[in-house]
Amino acid sequence: MKRNLLVGQSGGPTAAINASLAGVISKGLENSEFGKVLGTVNGIDGVLSSNFVDLGCFKDQNRLNILRQTPAAYLGSCRCQLPEDGEIYKTIFKVLKKRNIGAFIYIGGNDSMDTVNKLSNYARSNNIDICFIGVPKTIDNDLVLTDHTPGFPSAAKFVSNSIRQLALDADVYAMKSVIVAEIMGRNAGWLAASSVIANDDIFAPVDVVCLPEVPFKVRDFIDRTSDIISNKKTTVIAVSEGICNSAGEYVTAGITARGRNDGFKHVALGGVGKYIESIINTNLGVKTRTIEFSTLQRCASTCLSLCDINEAFEQGQYGVNLACGGVNGVMVGIQREDISGYKPYITSFDVSKVANFEKLMPASFIGEDGFSVTDGFIKYAAPLVKGEPEILYKNGVIQVETRNAHKQWRI
Amino acid sequence: MKRNLLVGQSGGPTAAINASLAGVISKGLENSEFGKVLGTVNGIDGVLSSNFVDLGCFKDQNRLNILRQTPAAYLGSCRCQLPEDGEIYKTIFKVLKKRNIGAFIYIGGNDSMDTVNKLSNYARSNNIDICFIGVPKTIDNDLVLTDHTPGFPSAAKFVSNSIRQLALDADVYAMKSVIVAEIMGRNAGWLAASSVIANDDIFAPVDVVCLPEVPFKVRDFIDRTSDIISNKKTTVIAVSEGICNSAGEYVTAGITARGRNDGFKHVALGGVGKYIESIINTNLGVKTRTIEFSTLQRCASTCLSLCDINEAFEQGQYGVNLACGGVNGVMVGIQREDISGYKPYITSFDVSKVANFEKLMPASFIGEDGFSVTDGFIKYAAPLVKGEPEILYKNGVIQVETRNAHKQWRI
Repeated sequence: MKRNLLVGQSGGPTAAINASLAGVISKGLENSEFGKVLGTVNGIDGVLSSNFVDLGCFKDQNRLNILRQTPAAYLGSCRCQLPEDGEIYKTIFKVLKKRNIGAFIYIGGNDSMDTVNKLSNYARSNNIDICFIGVPKTIDNDLVLTDHTPGFPSAAKFVSNSIRQLALDADVYAMKSVIVAEIMGRNAGWLAASSVIANDDIFAPVDVVCLPEVPFKVRDFIDRTSDIISNKKTTVIAVSEGICNSAGEYVTAGITARGRNDGFKHVALGGVGKYIESIINTNLGVKTRTIEFSTLQRCASTCLSLCDINEAFEQGQYGVNLACGGVNGVMVGIQREDISGYKPYITSFDVSKVANFEKLMPASFIGEDGFSVTDGFIKYAAPLVKGEPEILYKNGVIQVETRNAHKQWRI
Repeated sequence: MKRNLLVGQSGGPTAAINASLAGVISKGLENSEFGKVLGTVNGIDGVLSSNFVDLGCFKDQNRLNILRQTPAAYLGSCRCQLPEDGEIYKTIFKVLKKRNIGAFIYIGGNDSMDTVNKLSNYARSNNIDICFIGVPKTIDNDLVLTDHTPGFPSAAKFVSNSIRQLALDADVYAMKSVIVAEIMGRNAGWLAASSVIANDDIFAPVDVVCLPEVPFKVRDFIDRTSDIISNKKTTVIAVSEGICNSAGEYVTAGITARGRNDGFKHVALGGVGKYIESIINTNLGVKTRTIEFSTLQRCASTCLSLCDINEAFEQGQYGVNLACGGVNGVMVGIQREDISGYKPYITSFDVSKVANFEKLMPASFIGEDGFSVTDGFIKYAAPLVKGEPEILYKNGVIQVETRNAHKQWRI
């Protein structure tokens, strides 16, 4: 009897994580290696509670196409971090054995790769023949080794194009104005930096970028922005939510009243835009408005990058290929040939070399003034947002797949 | 010598106001009635300061197509309200005569129609042969007589589809959550009501709608939402920024510290979402997050309604047809045949019957509980968001037209 393929999703949702899921499902279903393709609901939590769904309903190509464009995470997500050892592993492997799982593909970010690493090590140490493979996703783009992560390009496209439109809107009145755009990215400034991608010869609204990689100094910021503001009618300042002072503390650390916790002992951020707004108001006296994209920046399927969705899908498929070959403990990833033009190829990496590391913006991508990005960054990021997939709407409403609509497939 | 056609834009930007401008320009340029097609920069302010541009550059069809999808207001905007009488009228008509203007088409909302009304009356009273014609736009959809206003359908499409995606994002975790979506609309709830358009059989996230037309009672709100929240994992509450208490005061009146003024003696609103969030937190103890779409809800050309853009364009064209016929003091508008299906036709109305009136949601569109909309509203609003125009991108960046790129056309 053929063994089953299990797939799960974990961490923060993106606009591309379901494209990777669609890649896993399509390759898993067309493949003769596996029996069923099963999904675990809410990531590893679904394994622990034996909450599975049969993904055979996606043999329907139309459904698969809609899944591919559905934002968030069809299978649900979790923020469960596995301990170093303990009874939980016995529970997990008991369930996997009961469900006759031959391979488990986990689509997620840094913390999810930690889970893949721990499970693959446990299997290896205990001579259990189950493959554990990670497929990356994170709008933060902070996974090491891989060139970039699915979800980041679409988020970058949404952020930069949204700022472009917001700045056009602000520009209609005769008076000077400043927009502060607060952008996700805890320790890595990739997404905030990407706000400049939509600057072009016709309209280049983004003037200042504040990145977590550069210690934020109020005096330098005022000096930099006052020049720009005095020479330009509409100024956009893109600020990463994670900017820190010279002591390495979040600039909003003393401001945010509630030190919330997201389950991974991360301090939940927010309010940095308003902080920057207050600096400009106090010191430069210009009408300033803060824009927060909130979670829309990670789930806007109405503004997808075709490059992103195709790569996310293909990385999901590649994960199944690796599973067929019995590979254990790797993360799928992407690299580009070091020649002119964007020529990516899909590959894989030892997941232990990815889990719990963090890829920050390199110095070569950050302008000397600390408030801009280099041409090298643009050359890196610009190809990723290219192309627009045809989005399926019905009566003006974006079509999505949800588990609620597939109740009959719960097993 | 043929007289020139003048066009201007006024009031808050929308995603469709440039489509109307494109309609005016295309019909004005192809027409043998007029000499040049000129634009006044920043609405009536541009007339007062004689700040005009020649719009002949849009003979280029590609440029015209890009203008059609460009959000905000290509010609700039203003919030200048004309006095009842005074020297200003002599100044305006002196400039119009000097520029050899035969007709002035003004694209805007309620306040702009007031300007059209006053200028057309002045021309009539003083036997001046210049036509003044209004072309509507406002995401608030609050102009009387016309069935709906360009800009509203695209804003409704953005808001409802964005909420759909945000709710999918919130739904990925196992825990219960509430999203409060704060939506524009000063006194009229059309846009907040439209959040329900994207509810469908697959996914219907919007459960509660708070409209300015219904006095907001905290007790009723808690009663209504507690039932829903206890029965549903992810609840979305769509709140109009303009909701008022039973005394007719904005619920945030005592909360918003700064009573800012937007030039028309409107109190600038904001913060109502956070107010609703605090009610839920205090009384129902559920994780709640407020989403503000800010100005992106009126300028998101990445999520346009084809119906809207086509109608906006055609209404601009129709304005030129009326100008050719020497019609003065009307606003272009749209009506629908009172039969099944959506069969709109373009017409015009006496602008004096539009200016300074306000169309609120009728009782027949509001649910009996005061926190929902009726099927009648859905039947009215749903056809308006249909269809997606092909959006022109270049390297993943939405293409736009700006006056800066056309400096050579300043006259």
